[in-house]
Amino acid sequence: MSTSERYLARVQVSLKPTVNDPEGDTIAGALGNLGFEGVEKVRSGRYFQVVLAAKDRAAAGQAVEDMCARLLANPVIETYSYELEPLA
Amino acid sequence: MSTSERYLARVQVSLKPTVNDPEGDTIAGALGNLGFEGVEKVRSGRYFQVVLAAKDRAAAGQAVEDMCARLLANPVIETYSYELEPLA
Repeated sequence: MSTSERYLARVQVSLKPTVNDPEGDTIAGALGNLGFEGVEKVRSGRYFQVVLAAKDRAAAGQAVEDMCARLLANPVIETYSYELEPLA
Repeated sequence: MSTSERYLARVQVSLKPTVNDPEGDTIAGALGNLGFEGVEKVRSGRYFQVVLAAKDRAAAGQAVEDMCARLLANPVIETYSYELEPLA
């Protein structure tokens, strides 16, 4: 019997609200040009899927927190969120 | 009384499983170098937050589907998913 569990972490990284996002503004403009009339705002960001082994959900969550703080996100200008999904 | 509702769509765009992802591989290697031992795989992607007005949830979902198919994702190599959240 294995002592570790596998998880899929879905990590969303986005710019803090006060940070300029020219990419998002450009996409919002392009959506308007394509005929999407209801678009008010677009913010762009990055998305990561991380498959990791950990002894339990708490350990997996702590590892993903650390990954975000140390590599995946730039804490000066970005915020992050994630969900953990157990894998078989 | 307004006839339209506002929604926040959180859109995740990721590469199809068969598409090479050197960025994800590099991040996985960097996490290993930082001491994260349980990382098996990392896939990189993009994340968008779209604020839009629509007459109801069904219309908002259809608009976001169309945005993904026409601009936000490249259907040849990417897949997308999204969640809709009503805004006050």
